[in-house]
Formats: sequence, C-alpha cells, structure tokens
Amino acid sequence: MAEILLAVIMLLHLSSSSSSSLPTSTVLDPLFLYIDEHQNEFVQRLGEWVAVKSDSSHRVHWGDIHRILNMTADRIKEMGGQVEFADIGTQQLSDGESLARPPVLLAQFERDPNKPTLCIYGHVDVQPAKKEDGWATDPYTLTELNGNLYGRGATDNKGPVLAWLHAVETYRATKQEVPVNLKFIIEGLEEIGSDGLDELTRQRNESFFSDVDYIVISDNVWVSRKPALTYGTRGSSYFFVEVEGPKLDLHSGVFGGSVHEPMTDMIALLGSLLDHTGKILVPGINESVAPLTEEEKKLYKDIHFDIEEMKKAIEVKSFLQDNKEEILMARWRYPSLSIHGIEGAFSDSGSKTVIPRRVIGKFSIRQVPNMEPSVVERQVKEHLQEVFAKQKSPNSLKVTTSVSAKPWVANLNDPLYIAGRKAVKLVFGEEPELIREGSTIPIANNFQEVTGKRVMMLPIGGHDDGEHSQNEKISRYNFIQGTKLFAAFFYELSKLQKDQ
Amino acid sequence: MAEILLAVIMLLHLSSSSSSSLPTSTVLDPLFLYIDEHQNEFVQRLGEWVAVKSDSSHRVHWGDIHRILNMTADRIKEMGGQVEFADIGTQQLSDGESLARPPVLLAQFERDPNKPTLCIYGHVDVQPAKKEDGWATDPYTLTELNGNLYGRGATDNKGPVLAWLHAVETYRATKQEVPVNLKFIIEGLEEIGSDGLDELTRQRNESFFSDVDYIVISDNVWVSRKPALTYGTRGSSYFFVEVEGPKLDLHSGVFGGSVHEPMTDMIALLGSLLDHTGKILVPGINESVAPLTEEEKKLYKDIHFDIEEMKKAIEVKSFLQDNKEEILMARWRYPSLSIHGIEGAFSDSGSKTVIPRRVIGKFSIRQVPNMEPSVVERQVKEHLQEVFAKQKSPNSLKVTTSVSAKPWVANLNDPLYIAGRKAVKLVFGEEPELIREGSTIPIANNFQEVTGKRVMMLPIGGHDDGEHSQNEKISRYNFIQGTKLFAAFFYELSKLQKDQ
Repeated sequence: MAEILLAVIMLLHLSSSSSSSLPTSTVLDPLFLYIDEHQNEFVQRLGEWVAVKSDSSHRVHWGDIHRILNMTADRIKEMGGQVEFADIGTQQLSDGESLARPPVLLAQFERDPNKPTLCIYGHVDVQPAKKEDGWATDPYTLTELNGNLYGRGATDNKGPVLAWLHAVETYRATKQEVPVNLKFIIEGLEEIGSDGLDELTRQRNESFFSDVDYIVISDNVWVSRKPALTYGTRGSSYFFVEVEGPKLDLHSGVFGGSVHEPMTDMIALLGSLLDHTGKILVPGINESVAPLTEEEKKLYKDIHFDIEEMKKAIEVKSFLQDNKEEILMARWRYPSLSIHGIEGAFSDSGSKTVIPRRVIGKFSIRQVPNMEPSVVERQVKEHLQEVFAKQKSPNSLKVTTSVSAKPWVANLNDPLYIAGRKAVKLVFGEEPELIREGSTIPIANNFQEVTGKRVMMLPIGGHDDGEHSQNEKISRYNFIQGTKLFAAFFYELSKLQKDQ
Repeated sequence: MAEILLAVIMLLHLSSSSSSSLPTSTVLDPLFLYIDEHQNEFVQRLGEWVAVKSDSSHRVHWGDIHRILNMTADRIKEMGGQVEFADIGTQQLSDGESLARPPVLLAQFERDPNKPTLCIYGHVDVQPAKKEDGWATDPYTLTELNGNLYGRGATDNKGPVLAWLHAVETYRATKQEVPVNLKFIIEGLEEIGSDGLDELTRQRNESFFSDVDYIVISDNVWVSRKPALTYGTRGSSYFFVEVEGPKLDLHSGVFGGSVHEPMTDMIALLGSLLDHTGKILVPGINESVAPLTEEEKKLYKDIHFDIEEMKKAIEVKSFLQDNKEEILMARWRYPSLSIHGIEGAFSDSGSKTVIPRRVIGKFSIRQVPNMEPSVVERQVKEHLQEVFAKQKSPNSLKVTTSVSAKPWVANLNDPLYIAGRKAVKLVFGEEPELIREGSTIPIANNFQEVTGKRVMMLPIGGHDDGEHSQNEKISRYNFIQGTKLFAAFFYELSKLQKDQ
C-alpha cells in the first residue's frame, strides 16, 4: 500500500529537475515515507557498522578503522560519489613508536553551481568498550531492546554518519535530486583527538573546502527529550602525569616506609588539581574564562532540562550546582577537570601488595572561551611541577598532553541555524532548543578558524544515549527521525538560498 | 669420582642408626655432596613448579593451586610421608560470591619419640605476574641467566618449599636417617592473607600440633649478601575503599563540572592517608607503636646493609631516611602505608575521557608491635569517613578489609635460634645477621599465639630476589646452599636436643 502511494507521488513529480521549488510536503513526503519503509534495512546496516571494533584508543584496532572507512567509501561510491583517502601522516604513540594514521575520507558528489554546497563531517572510530565494563549486551553486537539500539558507536558517531548517507540514498531512491551539493569528510581518530585533521583542513583549504558554503557536524546529543541545535562546544586537553621511581615494582612489606612511592607522589599531584566543589585549583585557569553576559544568561532559561529526571537517568543524588541554569553553565560555559584513572598501578580485582614503580595519572580539562589550550597546558605543567617540588621526591615527573582542542562558539543568527531550525520544526513539530555542548568536537572550532566557513552542529542522538559509557545506544526513533531531519535540512538549506 | 667418594662415606657409616651422634662432617659431607651432585635435577623440579600458575589473587587460577598442592603431596608420599588435605572452608570473594578454598596440606613422617619434632611451614601460591608488567622473561618459565633462576614463585615460596623437600630427599638418598621428626604444613592462599589457616591451626592444636616442638618458616629473604635469621615480621591489613557514584560511567565532556566524580572523592581519600615523608596521617596509629629501647637499637648497628648498593639494586636516588639504622627501622619496626592502585578507573594505555562510576582504592598498612589490626581498621575507617564527610559528596563510601595479620616478634635466646645460627655457620662459614622482616607472614604470629610453640624464620632467598615484583628470582647458589642449610639445620637441631 505504502509502496503504491510512493510510486504515485514519484510519478506526479517525475519531471521536476529541482525539488526545492516544489511545495515542501510534495518534496518531503515521499522521502519520509521511503525512510519509514526502509527503516529495518537502515538499522541492519547500523548493526554491520557497530560490529566493526574501530576503537581508536589502541593501535591493535586500527585495522578495523581502515575497514570501516572502506565500508563508508563503498556506500558513497554506490551512490555515485567520488572518494579520496587523504594521508594525514603518522601518530606518535605513548610507547614511543609511531604508526601511520588511518586516512581521512574525503568525498564529493556531482556539483551544480546553482546549489549551495554543504560539507558534512563525521567519524567512524569509537571509544573503547568491553562487555565486562558493565554492558548488558555485547558492545559490538547492535541489540534492539524497547525501541533502543544498543552498541558502541550507535550514537557516537556511526548512527549519525549512516543517517546522513541514508538521507542521500533516500533522495536517489525516490528519484529526487539532492537539492544541495554534498561533500563528506569522515575521519577515524576523533576519539583520540583528531590528530592530523587540522593540518589536512589547512592543506585542503584552497581546494576541497574552497567551494564549501556550510559545514555541518552531527556528533553530539540533545540535552532533553526535545530536539536541539548546538552552537558551542568545550575544548579539551588530555594530560598524562608520569611519576617514575624504582627500577622495579617493589614489595610493600619489604620496602614500605623506606622508599618514596610513586603512588604517594601521584595522589598528591592529582589531589592538587581540584577541590570537592569541582573548582579547578590550577592558578590562572578560572581567571581566563569569558565573563557571563546578561544576554547569554537569558539563553539558559528556555532550555528544557529536568534536574530530577537527569538525576534519575544517571542515578546521582545531587549535582554540584543547585539549579538548572547553573548546572547547564557548568557543563557548557565553564571549564571542568576530570581524573580518569592511573596506568601502571594495580587495577585488577583482588589484592596485590605492590609498590608500583611507574604510574601515569590521566586527567583532562574541558575548556571554554577565552581559554587557550597552549596556555592551559603551561599552567598545568607549572602547577604540577610546583606541587611535585614540595613532595621532595627523588622520583621523576613528566607531564605530557595528547589532545589540544580549542572551544568553539557560533553565531546563532547565521542562516545555517535558520535552516536547521526550520528542518527541526518540520520533522519534530517544535522549535529546537539552542544549546551548547560540554564535550569536545575539535573540528568545529578548527573548521571555523581555518576555513572561515559557517559551522553548525545538528544532533540527532537522545540525551540519554550514554556516548562513551556502557550501554551506549541510539533510539530507533531518533535514528529514523534523524535521517528525515537530514533529508529535510538539505531541502531547507536550498530553499533558504533560493529565497535570499 | 664424587659418586665413589659418596659411596665410601656411606659405607663407613652404614651401621649408624642415628647420625646426630656422629661427627658433624661425617654426617653432613655426604649430604652436601649429594646436593651438589643433584643440583640440576633440583633446579629442573623448580622449573616444573614455577610453570604452575598458582596465582591466588584471582579465582580463575585456583585450579592451579590444587594442582601444585597435589604435586607437593606426591613428592612427600614418594619419600614415605603421610598426607592429608585439610578443608579450610569457603572464601567470600570481592564480587560477592563464595568459593571453596584450596585445602591446606598437612604431612608427617614416621615418628621417633626420641627425636625432636619440627614442623615446616611453606606456601605454593604466588603473586600475580604478567609478561607485559615488565618481565624480561616469561614469568611462568623458569629461566637461568647469570646464575639466577627467574620465575614467579622462584623465591616466594616455591624454591624454599622445594629446598626443604630436597633436604629430606638427600637424607633418604644417602641412606641416613633424618635426625628430627618432620611435619609439613603447606598452604595455597598465603598471598591473599592465609584465610582459614588460623582457624585450622586452632582446630588441630590438640592433634597435629600437639607433639610439635618447633616451627620453622622460610618465606622471606636476607637483607644483604650475608645469610640471616629472622625474629620478627610486620603485620598487615589490606583496605578496599569503594566510592560509588552514578549508575554508569559518564562522558567527562557532557557531565564534567556538574557531577561529584567518584575519582575526585577517591583522590581526596587516598591523599589523606600519608604525607610526603611517608608518615601515616590516620590519627592514633603512630601513638600505638612500641617505643624503641636502647637494647633493640643496638641490634641494628651490626646489620650489614649498604645503602648505596641497595639504591643501585632498585635504582632509587634516595630513601625516606638518611642512615642505615633508620632505614632498617622504617622497614622492620615502624608501620608503613602503601597505596597499591585503583580498580574501576581507566588503567589501560592511551586516553579515555571517562568519569568512572565506581572506583575501589587499594592500600595496605604494615603493622608492628603494639598495633592491633582490629584497632587499626577501626581507626582507618573512622578517618576515611571523616575525610569523606568533608567532601560533601552524594556518592557512597564503603571501606572493607581483606587481610588482618598481626605483627610477630620472637625471643632471640630461644634454642631454636641457636641451632639456626650453628647451621648457618656450618654452611656459609659466617654468623647469620639477626634481622626482622618488613613483610607479613601472618602464620608466624598465629603459630606462636595459638600453639605456644617456638617459631623461627630461616630465609634462604637473596636480598635482591624481587619477591612480588617483576623478574622475581632465586640464585642457583642460594637455592642449593639453602638446601644444604636445611639439611644441616635438621642435624643441629637434633644435636642441640641431645646436648641439653
């Protein structure tokens, strides 16, 4: 029945060469119908992608990054796109070796000079995941439960990347012309800091990016049950604090009390970073945060964020702040410091009476305007060296960083955001929330800084998707409606261009 | 040639029913010769034992503990001993499950009421070991390099247990009667705290232990290149500090700055335990340490301990104390606190931007007279609860302990120590150093408290054996001379009895 309807609609508009001049429903209804009809196929493809263990955190999985990049390229080529695997050099690994980085996939479709050109960014690598971390299902087997699709990368970022490709496929399958020129830039090292991508952007600024009008990124999630547009992200620096002591691990019975234990130094170092209110204690950091204006303050009032619901969702008894505005600002417009763990110490279950010889504390600082990562890194190093000096320890201290991503904030009055708001309204029947993102998508700022193009983030993931966590998921609803949103966004963007 | 000599010596003394009335050299020379002649066989057997991964820290290896206990029992039975596998109940594991403990092996040989009865304690479980922890060789493949036998358990405690068995074998092979009655008590859970053994000792106090005169333990190492007798050990309590927060690990970008992170609480808790001088900050602990007497102070002067050599051996630039006596006292007669690591946080190599939901800090306190483990545990719990209250955290805190072993100090004028000193002099040509041990062998104090028997520790491991560490070893010299020491000790103990 639905197929007959589709066929009729397609027949009615067969002669149209540019769909954007047609009434909205005439263009979008067949697209939306196709997406609904083919949703199981789309979910199945997501399952195939999730099954690829493209965890960029450890080089043993880098072969799988190559594999998923090839799978992505194959889909684009099937739809008539041209692909290039751009070399982005080698990565210095923490063990001292260097390894060729997986390339960045650059893709483009046939270009019509009368259409605006949209460049879509996404990544196909994922965070680490092990069943024993507390996953209810195997992280690399996409599993549907109660309308949710569980699996590592389901929402961050394989689901959204596929939704973009499915949106393109839908135009082609319904014999409609995609109303914008499309380019894709898909990488495989986002989760460890997108090294090499910034440099590539610079290199291709006069070529690949020269005819790009807009850049859109869908690599974050909504903040509530309502759809959202994102106009800012926090930056990040990841720190490795290494304290090295004796030649070997020592027996705590034999040597305890007589040696300067690297772990004692480490705990003192990590303990000097922030206080129990979450305030960063590294001198100079809080002073560089952009002051809050009254205009900005107002933006937070309209955001739908239910403190009680969020408490229940993540099962915490309270937040560090008391009200909605303060919590959102703590997540979006103020810096934060999280201690992630210690490498080299005893971390298995059970007991081991060891004095670890060398330990590497790991923490990261999320950064906001007007913090400058290079300045933050210097401030942190100086602070840690000062604390370490007070330890009067004969051990050695080494502080290194692996990520250095600037914060990003866009202009909400940009036409890109207007098209995004219209597309959201069309698909979800309501205005999007205008939000910022606490996490880091370094490329947002890099694109804006290097190419000078307008950048928008258009999330389709739900607020409870648990990216980076156990039981990461995307709901079937968000995955499928998100595909519609992307299809509608192509249309609204082209219409906006025509209307101007 | 050596075999002919042995045969002649044996022939000369064939009629002797009790070797202890014979001149020392007549008894011991053939024993020592046999040991030298069979050293490769002894080393090979150590290799077979080291190959059994009897790591008691994790239940997956408990099957191997049963296996090595059976191998031990088989050797004793081959030499005419009777064995019993004594049930010691079930172990409550940290994951909440309980598991039947590997039994304790009780063994005895035919008893002559005219001879003193010696009970030998040892253990055949080992600490965890992985090649990637930094071992130069596979930890479970005994590897001889430059006169050292590398492998997990080589010195702690498979080598010494085998040396005892080889000493017995040597008497039998050279057709001499073992001059003492022998009992063995061999366990498989020493490295996780010897749970169940104390209770078994109580249960068998009126039976297995009733006719025991002396108990000897060889589960520690010398403190220098000189042989040693050990008259004291530190006790130990192992603490698990668990902080539990959100339901799931959280993304540090999304939630950083708004949630009370369990790791922030953990670092504050661990940081409150000791200062950079190694001083324990838990109130009440230092106050309970027995005051140092002038008499005790003098004992430390004669110990051979080369600070510079030890610095080189473990590659540290300095110790927490400046002189020999203070370093030795810090290791032997003062308490210490070591932080071993954190379970549940990110501990792999690379970077992960996670806020761990639940982390378990692990530390242990080595205890000395007159500290009482149950009191120490209460002091630590109260202290941590007080520190945690100041964090004003909505997370939950749980402090548990897994080991609770009292310190032990023996009387150096006991006849047992006189026999030990004579045996050392015979084999090594010099007086032993009278030392204490910083590490914990809970059974020493338990035996002394429960059975009322005299206890001695007679180490054969070298000061640089690296027990609990990477590249654990015993030197071939110590393993073989140690076997001679045990054979000579049987003789000296019986002679002492006769002379009295």
